[in-house]
Amino acid sequence: MAGSDRDDIDALIELMARLPGLGPRSARRAVLHMIAKRGQILSPLAELTRKVADTARECLNCGNVGTADVCAICRDEARATGLLCVVEDVADLWAMERSGQFGGRYHVLGGTLSALDSVGPEDLGIPRLVDRVSAEGVTEVILALNATVDGQTTAHYIADALEGRVTLSSLAQGVPIGGELDYLDDGTITAALRARRAL
Amino acid sequence: MAGSDRDDIDALIELMARLPGLGPRSARRAVLHMIAKRGQILSPLAELTRKVADTARECLNCGNVGTADVCAICRDEARATGLLCVVEDVADLWAMERSGQFGGRYHVLGGTLSALDSVGPEDLGIPRLVDRVSAEGVTEVILALNATVDGQTTAHYIADALEGRVTLSSLAQGVPIGGELDYLDDGTITAALRARRAL
Repeated sequence: MAGSDRDDIDALIELMARLPGLGPRSARRAVLHMIAKRGQILSPLAELTRKVADTARECLNCGNVGTADVCAICRDEARATGLLCVVEDVADLWAMERSGQFGGRYHVLGGTLSALDSVGPEDLGIPRLVDRVSAEGVTEVILALNATVDGQTTAHYIADALEGRVTLSSLAQGVPIGGELDYLDDGTITAALRARRAL
Repeated sequence: MAGSDRDDIDALIELMARLPGLGPRSARRAVLHMIAKRGQILSPLAELTRKVADTARECLNCGNVGTADVCAICRDEARATGLLCVVEDVADLWAMERSGQFGGRYHVLGGTLSALDSVGPEDLGIPRLVDRVSAEGVTEVILALNATVDGQTTAHYIADALEGRVTLSSLAQGVPIGGELDYLDDGTITAALRARRAL
């Protein structure tokens, strides 16, 4: 924009603007902030992005992101409980881990089935999931997919593929903790009402 | 979160979360996106952040960010027009440049006067601005500060400091292009009415 001595800075802004959640304006602000805080942010960022670019990889077993061929969760013998949780992506796996309530292993699909985007069962590693169920002696599969149309379609497909081989369950649907009825959509209230629990 | 093999990735997420406009959740999404697009985003990002960390600097003359000690705008003889535009920060300078309407040079304050945060005239380089006015034969100063209380206070202070030495002006206030009256605040409508132009 303002002369030839800004080529690298402009390229960095353009690259940052391609990250989810950032646009051209916020990328500009972010890069100027980095430059203003060179010691605290820009230099460590240069080092860490290099390190992560060199070492980050997907777990060959479950698809989690880490720095080893097989991730810490899959290596943990204490988690070989025969319980498998299927999630759409790595962010969902991390969200499940933050709850600290699940002691089994995961299977990351990397998306959902989609006829429009021609994403089929092979692309999501569903055949490999079926193989894992046999190979790892899995007895229960929890389908922790998003409560969207695509997520639920994918859950149905996987449930069909695994039927009769394992106990299947999906996450409960209902009122989120701290949720106020007045702010919830009809679908959520309907689901919460249908799945009401006796006291 | 999920085991010791994620230290660098977690550190990168924490660092990204410190950028303006990003929080913990969006930083997590951004980093997972980077890793998924290693070739297109993460590796170029590592290279560019390293380059920018090594080369970016503030122009010694005006405070603009570039890769030379004196920025392209200050080096450009065609812009030695005796016209100086005072802005709060580099993002504002770049915004002015995008309009393509200003042919003079800039002076970046790096903030606004603030008694609360104990930011005084020295911190904003206002004495240096006064020096530049003499040294560069400046005849007109445009105060392009934000239309906030702090911005306008700072504009008044600078106007006092330069009074009688140069022609002073500030950006017009009024209805933004494309703006609808119904959506504008009272202050803007008042300012636009006071500054109405004869047709």
